[in-house]
Amino acid sequence: MAERREMPLWGWGDPDHVREIPKGAAETLSADLGFHAASDLPAQAIEDFELAAPALAPELLERLSGTVPTGSVSTEPWLRLLRAAGKSYGDAVRMRAGRPGDAPDAVVTPGAEGEIAGLLQLCSQLRIAVVPFGGGTSVVGGLSTIREDFIGSISLDLGRLSGLTNVDKESLLATFRPGTKGPEAEALLKPYGLTVGHFPQSFEYASIGGFVATRSAGQSSTGYGRIDRNVMGLKVTTPTGRIDLAPMPGTAAGPDLRQLLIGSEGTLGVIDEVTLRVHPLPTRVLDLAWIAPDFATGRELLRLMEQDGCAPEVARLSDERETEVNLGFAGDSLAIRVLRGYLRLRRRSNGCLMITCFEGDALDVARRRQRAASLMRKHRCLSLGSKVARGWRKGRFSGPYMRDSLMDGGLFVETLETAGNWSNLGRLYDAVGAELQRELEKEGGSPIVMCHVSHLYPTGASLYFTFVGMQPYETVEERLALWRRVKASACDAIRASGGTITHHHAIGTDHAPWLEDEIGEAGIRMLRAAKAELDPAGIMNPGRLMN
Amino acid sequence: MAERREMPLWGWGDPDHVREIPKGAAETLSADLGFHAASDLPAQAIEDFELAAPALAPELLERLSGTVPTGSVSTEPWLRLLRAAGKSYGDAVRMRAGRPGDAPDAVVTPGAEGEIAGLLQLCSQLRIAVVPFGGGTSVVGGLSTIREDFIGSISLDLGRLSGLTNVDKESLLATFRPGTKGPEAEALLKPYGLTVGHFPQSFEYASIGGFVATRSAGQSSTGYGRIDRNVMGLKVTTPTGRIDLAPMPGTAAGPDLRQLLIGSEGTLGVIDEVTLRVHPLPTRVLDLAWIAPDFATGRELLRLMEQDGCAPEVARLSDERETEVNLGFAGDSLAIRVLRGYLRLRRRSNGCLMITCFEGDALDVARRRQRAASLMRKHRCLSLGSKVARGWRKGRFSGPYMRDSLMDGGLFVETLETAGNWSNLGRLYDAVGAELQRELEKEGGSPIVMCHVSHLYPTGASLYFTFVGMQPYETVEERLALWRRVKASACDAIRASGGTITHHHAIGTDHAPWLEDEIGEAGIRMLRAAKAELDPAGIMNPGRLMN
Repeated sequence: MAERREMPLWGWGDPDHVREIPKGAAETLSADLGFHAASDLPAQAIEDFELAAPALAPELLERLSGTVPTGSVSTEPWLRLLRAAGKSYGDAVRMRAGRPGDAPDAVVTPGAEGEIAGLLQLCSQLRIAVVPFGGGTSVVGGLSTIREDFIGSISLDLGRLSGLTNVDKESLLATFRPGTKGPEAEALLKPYGLTVGHFPQSFEYASIGGFVATRSAGQSSTGYGRIDRNVMGLKVTTPTGRIDLAPMPGTAAGPDLRQLLIGSEGTLGVIDEVTLRVHPLPTRVLDLAWIAPDFATGRELLRLMEQDGCAPEVARLSDERETEVNLGFAGDSLAIRVLRGYLRLRRRSNGCLMITCFEGDALDVARRRQRAASLMRKHRCLSLGSKVARGWRKGRFSGPYMRDSLMDGGLFVETLETAGNWSNLGRLYDAVGAELQRELEKEGGSPIVMCHVSHLYPTGASLYFTFVGMQPYETVEERLALWRRVKASACDAIRASGGTITHHHAIGTDHAPWLEDEIGEAGIRMLRAAKAELDPAGIMNPGRLMN
Repeated sequence: MAERREMPLWGWGDPDHVREIPKGAAETLSADLGFHAASDLPAQAIEDFELAAPALAPELLERLSGTVPTGSVSTEPWLRLLRAAGKSYGDAVRMRAGRPGDAPDAVVTPGAEGEIAGLLQLCSQLRIAVVPFGGGTSVVGGLSTIREDFIGSISLDLGRLSGLTNVDKESLLATFRPGTKGPEAEALLKPYGLTVGHFPQSFEYASIGGFVATRSAGQSSTGYGRIDRNVMGLKVTTPTGRIDLAPMPGTAAGPDLRQLLIGSEGTLGVIDEVTLRVHPLPTRVLDLAWIAPDFATGRELLRLMEQDGCAPEVARLSDERETEVNLGFAGDSLAIRVLRGYLRLRRRSNGCLMITCFEGDALDVARRRQRAASLMRKHRCLSLGSKVARGWRKGRFSGPYMRDSLMDGGLFVETLETAGNWSNLGRLYDAVGAELQRELEKEGGSPIVMCHVSHLYPTGASLYFTFVGMQPYETVEERLALWRRVKASACDAIRASGGTITHHHAIGTDHAPWLEDEIGEAGIRMLRAAKAELDPAGIMNPGRLMN
């Protein structure tokens, strides 16, 4: 078992990753939004953090220890801080200021799946809240400590329960322990010539159990399918018993309980084993970039490709603003200058960048590429060849690192996503973008609101917004208030325009106020009834999802 | 609204359909199992049926009438009999003998979706059980009258709530009222160039709401997907409120409640609107038949086609016995004689028939056909060209009619299905087939047990067994006992071998004893909790699914 590589308290990912904003981009951000690199740096030392002593008495911690004979129960302050939050903008604001809010009383790290049942039973009996912790990458408040009227709260760290326990190559099935991280899962499957095919931006840290608990989608999900399409079997330990749903290719045996557990965000139990449909590793990979004349034409192209069956595994279309910013952020290399010149020459300075990554065998890739290219030409798209697309692939997990640098420079930066049916996508895009622009402008400067389509379905697609604005406030409370106000306005606009409140970031605490609008009062009652049955003491990740 | 075309009480489908057993087949069945055409004919006249007077007092019927101002409440005896059962072997045995068992006190046929809520509230208050009735094609006891401790039981006939209410061609979405029958749905979509693509053997009578309530699969589901993959939005009226889940292409907004309502078999509420992902009508259809050297090789071929992405929309592989019987039942035309001669010549008299139907556009069909044909050749499959496959397509809905003729001739005939992962499919096939053979042989003669693979998935496939044996008993009770004994043994074998208890026939009453083995005690508790929340009086289709 490899030692867990921790992210920094104050931000995203590998602490050694370089997070520099390119010079040209920094200048623009400085002029438009008052960005000043390294003007607002985060707390780093343990003394800078407010942290209350654990609320659980030593004898209770002792009893918890008794449930995890091969695991550990730790109250080490730094570890408690590391388990106190996810990676949302709100989490970052708090952590950077040394104000984590509440933190778990203890971090419990079982060494075997079988230890979870006893732990949950004891916590039910003692009324101790349990927050399952997979990769720690939640950006919706899925991991914060919410005590309600419990006597304590623990982080249930699944990091030691990792690895591949079974491969059925004939059936394309692979069984993982829940704490297996994205890169580890891929490394374990590689010798079999297989891939999970799930690459969210959080890939480096997120876990298989977390993918399932949050119903996640990855950058290649247009090709390989969302996680909810690939979960064939799963096992969940709840406070009142274990659920074991064997992998079945198709069944009419009543409601699909797998789909009630996928996306349950730790509120019903702990996902402790996942059997995924896996995919043959591609033998041919072809990354191509294009410039569409405008966002609407680009979206129409994506729809046609998806409905025609020639869509690539990755299909990302940036709107005009994101295209402009991306080219700016890409730095001032010769390649980028040549590209800009080429676009000006072809009068496409205001086009939309489209990244397409085809993966499969040579014949299949060639076929889809040919059909796609013919559609592209028909819709006046310009081919940019492979270089830009390969560059995207190389940096596909580096987006979140940029946020830290922007926050260091005093900016407000956030992302959110939705999805809608094709016929509604333009309306949804306009409404949410306009709302974000309006809200950010209230704080001054020239905010950036940009968007891309990142996941295609036969009936619709996702929209992913990134926005950067002024953060003129000094206190944690004021900064959080700005964040909440902007996010709430955007969420209202999403629902009012018929989009889903979240396409791949889950509900957590942050989207919970909008869930009832999406699934209805009876839907919330169904979720609460399932929870009351499986977790009558309500200890499992309280305050999340259905509350 | 077209008048509902009723099936005969005693059997399947269109009363005018010719149900003759080919001469050669009749002779074989006669020698092997004592078949004698028309030796055991069903009751036909109303006087031949036992039917108790309605248990509900006139004033209660009056109150029910008040909830359906544009609908009707009928206690007409023939209609009550028509709504008293589905189309299982057990149902047929009872109906043929004029012994329907219990029947609903009244048949309530609402004229508008909005009338359902008031009806369910009144029934909850009065404690009247409600059995939703779509197409009436259940073969698992989904429609029988189970009174438990209710004061009455009604059949809620959705037949008048039919039609297409919205088409979003850009998003490939179509919204149907629940009672829309298969052929009607296709006729309504055809002008838009679209198809539902859902063709179960019950297609002629089954309804869209019924497809969803039973989580059904159709003969072309390998290509177009099971109904649970195509339901994007749905509305369900429950005794405590309406659930309205809008169509979303993909979402991470918690558990997918659609998948809890799909397959709920009327136990949680009445599905009163369904938005399906629909498909462009194929512009090219290519039906091809093949002979695989044996069943195991044929299964391997199906797996390779499916995992390669070149599988046809319909892929059916009969085992050796079914191949032999199918050719026998196909009659003694010149074509069949030529075929038999050809097979003998190529020493394939013991091969396995494979039907493949490719549907799509010309380019796509050509590509898949080419890849499939290359796999076929590599596995020593013999092409039979189009004729046999076109014959299958022509008769694709006629299987159930044959059962009536076999029963007329005094035989026991039944089907059941399961599904399993590819690596387990051979074991599952052997175990279930052997168990059926053993059980049927107890009654003497030379029983027929045959099987085909009918639905392909990346991780596995379905197995559909048809079996014919002696029915030496005279009384309804004895005949039902034989049926239950054989079915129970097969179900035990399915579960013991890791198959699902039902691939597309649902749970109903008949599979309910095996559901807990498949989804576990905690799974049953989850279903019961959802039911208790939505239907606290327990009036919705009692005795089904989770009981």
